[in-house]
Amino acid sequence: MRISEKTIERLSVFRRVLGRLQESGVQNVYSHELASMSHSSPEIVRRDLMATGYSGSPAKGYEVLGLIETIDTVLDGPVEQRIALVGVGNLGRAMLSFFRGKRQRLSIVLAFDLNPEKVGRVLFGTQILPVDGMETLLKENGVSLGVITVPGPAAQAVADRLVAGGVQGLLNFSPTPLRVPRDVYVEDIDLTMAIEKVAFYARQRARNKGEEA
Amino acid sequence: MRISEKTIERLSVFRRVLGRLQESGVQNVYSHELASMSHSSPEIVRRDLMATGYSGSPAKGYEVLGLIETIDTVLDGPVEQRIALVGVGNLGRAMLSFFRGKRQRLSIVLAFDLNPEKVGRVLFGTQILPVDGMETLLKENGVSLGVITVPGPAAQAVADRLVAGGVQGLLNFSPTPLRVPRDVYVEDIDLTMAIEKVAFYARQRARNKGEEA
Repeated sequence: MRISEKTIERLSVFRRVLGRLQESGVQNVYSHELASMSHSSPEIVRRDLMATGYSGSPAKGYEVLGLIETIDTVLDGPVEQRIALVGVGNLGRAMLSFFRGKRQRLSIVLAFDLNPEKVGRVLFGTQILPVDGMETLLKENGVSLGVITVPGPAAQAVADRLVAGGVQGLLNFSPTPLRVPRDVYVEDIDLTMAIEKVAFYARQRARNKGEEA
Repeated sequence: MRISEKTIERLSVFRRVLGRLQESGVQNVYSHELASMSHSSPEIVRRDLMATGYSGSPAKGYEVLGLIETIDTVLDGPVEQRIALVGVGNLGRAMLSFFRGKRQRLSIVLAFDLNPEKVGRVLFGTQILPVDGMETLLKENGVSLGVITVPGPAAQAVADRLVAGGVQGLLNFSPTPLRVPRDVYVEDIDLTMAIEKVAFYARQRARNKGEEA
C-alpha cells in the first residue's frame, strides 16, 4: 500500500477530528462532514480513506470508531515507538509537556541536555540526562525517534549521536539543515521561516486589498 | 513580481545561511555553495534569487551582503510588522523567547492570556495582558500578525478576536483548523501531525531496510 505524504498528514488530522466526534458520542460521519471539519474536500477525504482500505456505507457514512482504529493501524504501527528529546530549553520543555501522554504508542522516554545544571531535574515526568553515553542509553531503551530542540550550532552533532544510537526519524526544530544517512527521515519545523512567511503573505494580502479598494 | 510559496520559504533559509557567512567574514558565495548549505540545488538557488531581481557575477558568485539586503526587501517589507501572541503556556513562553529580537522589523509586542493569574507578569520583556479589550489594544499598537498558542477548543474564538483587531496573518499552533476571512493568511504548525509523520516514515524506512537486508 503506497500512501502519499499529504495523505499521511491528513490522516493525522482526520484522526484528531474523529477523536473529538467520538468524545461527543457521534457514531457515524459523512465524508462531507469530515471534510468541513478538517479544511478538506469530500473527494479528498474519500480518496484518503480509500487508501487506508476502510470503506463507508453510502447510507450511514463512516463508522467513527472503526475509522479511528483503521487510521491507528496505518499511523501507529504494531509496537510502541519511543522518542528521545535533546535540548531542554523553553522549546524543549514545551515539547515535553505537549507530547506527554498524547498517544499510547508514541512517547518521549528520554530527555537530554548539554547543560550539567539541568541534568537530574525531572520535567513533566521525564528525568533530564547528561549527553555522555547518549548512544548506549538510546539503544538500551529502544528509542527510534528523536526531537532536536538545541540551538542551531549544536544540532548536527546531536543528530549524529541520535543516529549513532539507532534513531530512524528526527523532528528538527533547529534552523540547521541536517546531514543524515538516507535511511533516516527528517521533518523540519522552521519557526523563523514560518513567521516570516506569515508576515510576507499578510503584507501581500493587505496590499492587494488596498489596491482593490 | 510573483514569487512562489516554496521560494518564499527558501529565501528565509538562504538569508539565515547568508547571515552566518557574513558573520564569518565571507564576502562572496557561489550558488552551489549556498545550495549545499541549505539542502537545495544550484539550479533552484539561481532561480529563486533571480525572482528577487538580484544577479551574481559568474566569476565571483553572489555578494553576501548585497544578497541579504535584497532578500530583506522581499521578506521584510518597508515598515515594522508587529505580532501579538495569545496563550502563554509552555509553548507560548517558548515562542516569546524564540522570537525575541530575532528580526528588526518583526517582533512580538503584545502577549495575552485567558488565565487571570498569569496577567501582569512580565516574560521575556513582554507584559502579559488580559484578553478583555484585546481588539482595541491590537489596533492601538498597530499589530498585524498573531501567534496562537492556546489549546484547541479556545483557538477559533481567539482567531476571531485577532481578526477583529485587524490582524492579517496568523501562525496557528493549535490543532484546530481555523475559519477566517479570505484576506487573512493562516500558517498552521501541527506538532502532533509532525511527530506522527516522523514516526510513520521512520517505521517505513526501517521496514524497507529490513527487506533489503
